[in-house]
Amino acid sequence: MTLFMFTDFGVEGPYVGQLEAAIDQVNREIKIIHLLHNAPFANPEASSYLLAALAGQLPGDCIVLAVVDPGVGGERAALVLEADGRFFVGPDNGLLNTIALHSKVTQWFEIDWAPDNCSKSFHGRDLFAPMAAWLYSGLADDKLKPYQARGLSSWPLDLDQIIYFDHYGNAMSGIRYCKRFDGQALKINGHVLTQADTFSSVSKGECFWYENSAGLIEIAANQENAKQLLDLAVGDAVAWSRDDS
Amino acid sequence: MTLFMFTDFGVEGPYVGQLEAAIDQVNREIKIIHLLHNAPFANPEASSYLLAALAGQLPGDCIVLAVVDPGVGGERAALVLEADGRFFVGPDNGLLNTIALHSKVTQWFEIDWAPDNCSKSFHGRDLFAPMAAWLYSGLADDKLKPYQARGLSSWPLDLDQIIYFDHYGNAMSGIRYCKRFDGQALKINGHVLTQADTFSSVSKGECFWYENSAGLIEIAANQENAKQLLDLAVGDAVAWSRDDS
Amino acid sequence: MTLFMFTDFGVEGPYVGQLEAAIDQVNREIKIIHLLHNAPFANPEASSYLLAALAGQLPGDCIVLAVVDPGVGGERAALVLEADGRFFVGPDNGLLNTIALHSKVTQWFEIDWAPDNCSKSFHGRDLFAPMAAWLYSGLADDKLKPYQARGLSSWPLDLDQIIYFDHYGNAMSGIRYCKRFDGQALKINGHVLTQADTFSSVSKGECFWYENSAGLIEIAANQENAKQLLDLAVGDAVAWSRDDS
Repeated sequence: MTLFMFTDFGVEGPYVGQLEAAIDQVNREIKIIHLLHNAPFANPEASSYLLAALAGQLPGDCIVLAVVDPGVGGERAALVLEADGRFFVGPDNGLLNTIALHSKVTQWFEIDWAPDNCSKSFHGRDLFAPMAAWLYSGLADDKLKPYQARGLSSWPLDLDQIIYFDHYGNAMSGIRYCKRFDGQALKINGHVLTQADTFSSVSKGECFWYENSAGLIEIAANQENAKQLLDLAVGDAVAWSRDDS
Repeated sequence: MTLFMFTDFGVEGPYVGQLEAAIDQVNREIKIIHLLHNAPFANPEASSYLLAALAGQLPGDCIVLAVVDPGVGGERAALVLEADGRFFVGPDNGLLNTIALHSKVTQWFEIDWAPDNCSKSFHGRDLFAPMAAWLYSGLADDKLKPYQARGLSSWPLDLDQIIYFDHYGNAMSGIRYCKRFDGQALKINGHVLTQADTFSSVSKGECFWYENSAGLIEIAANQENAKQLLDLAVGDAVAWSRDDS
Repeated sequence: MTLFMFTDFGVEGPYVGQLEAAIDQVNREIKIIHLLHNAPFANPEASSYLLAALAGQLPGDCIVLAVVDPGVGGERAALVLEADGRFFVGPDNGLLNTIALHSKVTQWFEIDWAPDNCSKSFHGRDLFAPMAAWLYSGLADDKLKPYQARGLSSWPLDLDQIIYFDHYGNAMSGIRYCKRFDGQALKINGHVLTQADTFSSVSKGECFWYENSAGLIEIAANQENAKQLLDLAVGDAVAWSRDDS
């Protein structure tokens, strides 16, 4: 089994190392893979669609420690979601909602435990990381209680917005690709982009849309930075238009 | 046992990977956690206070490879510090001083070894990483000799300055929190900030100070970037004022 | 044995974690070290000289997963290069050429395998990472066929250009140091730089050239950022002049 991390902590330090140290204290044999540490800052909604797309490609029995938690220290609950065999540990702020909506079988739990010296600003280290380590180790049952998820019915299955920029400046949307988009033009920020099959099938610097390797609609430029070329930001609306419209 | 790294090398490459490769050559079974790789650039003094705060929360028997070393290749000695059971490996430029001052039992050693082909610009790889690996493996004794630390008596216990910005733009100071600060206002760059308990207890974009998860006084903004909002830099002076002053 | 990664994927996410997950699916016991993930963007030529310098210092029996692949999804072949005992897995776009030229014994193979659901934009995850894992595990033979490398005869042994900036703003060139450069001045962007032995042997902010820890000619400034001070970019030409010229 593998424990994946998905956070907005940044990878340089010190928070990711502190998560690892907390896990190391529970069980030194846990295999950790850092999936992503630059989730959209303080944005659980956008992060939720990115997490769902990436998590859908992970092994069927993994643990995911997911922390994008601007409300840390406030009233939001601390959760575990079991979704089609995978376990997700994170805050109750929407971050896990999209996974639940895209899954067949789900079960929600609230974490019914806290350390004596829990900080008010870093539940990732003090609460979620130990919980993930216990789940991995089969020692979590007595620290969980059933939970009734709220607000899922009003949460859209896809998000028609930009949710993430990768290292290259490619812009991922919260829209899962399906065949009906083929041949349609994508409208964003006053630009109209056509579909391309591969980066190298368009000329250098040309912008296009395509189904990315996580199954999402993505806006990219061949060998250049689409974010800068099109002046994009997280939250920008994505729309479609038939060529004949 | 775990080996933690604390450097200003940046995590993208290639220096951190080269540290790992050097350790791998000595002992393939060493467990490594990357605590921090964006220590204040070429600033051993500020780094010293950050390292001491973070190291105080690590397991009691760890090894810490600590490299912020602008004087590499010059005259500064190469050291090992044993402090309350933890071992620190790094340059003699102040980086390890704060740990020593905050510890009960300390012992200093000078590294009495160098490889034949030691580079002049990367002692992290050529000297400190192998040394940390030997310490971890119980093979260091014949490569160390006693050392007399210098200048510790003039080194302050806390540093009344900004020492580090995290991924969110939160500004850490070199001041450890204690109860006497409660209710005081913090003055920085002409701004006066009040204390808050949690990020979510102030409005979005509001700046405040609080005790961070490493026990340091930190300046932050709810869901925004305090560094940018207050135009802060490493080295900016932090002062206190009673509300009635 | 150790598997090293060298890419332009950025380390924050999600691509590096996805490479690790793909390797984890093949063999959970593979030891991975992240050598570099900020190779010059979409620039296999510059990356090739950096990779060759770094790889020459790696253990003699390692696997290197090397992906800088702007032509992904197009016609370029997918290769394995065995060079003096080390194995390199990557695209046929020049990235592996410098290693081949600097090695004594080389053998080229084409990857004769693809997964059913291979993406068009992420062969690192779908093709190269599994291949590297099979090589590591001794399971690759039936997925390789001999390959005839092209264009090597016109590829220079050294590249007289800036190829990479490190975390500090130091500028690496594609030129390997040799003694005949000693005492020569280096010309770049209208600046003339003299040689220095160590960072601390020049004054703060002074720019100089030296042999870096990977054996390349590098331009640096003591405790400051040479890239910014000299306004450098990847591709800038490096030239030499005798002091008496």
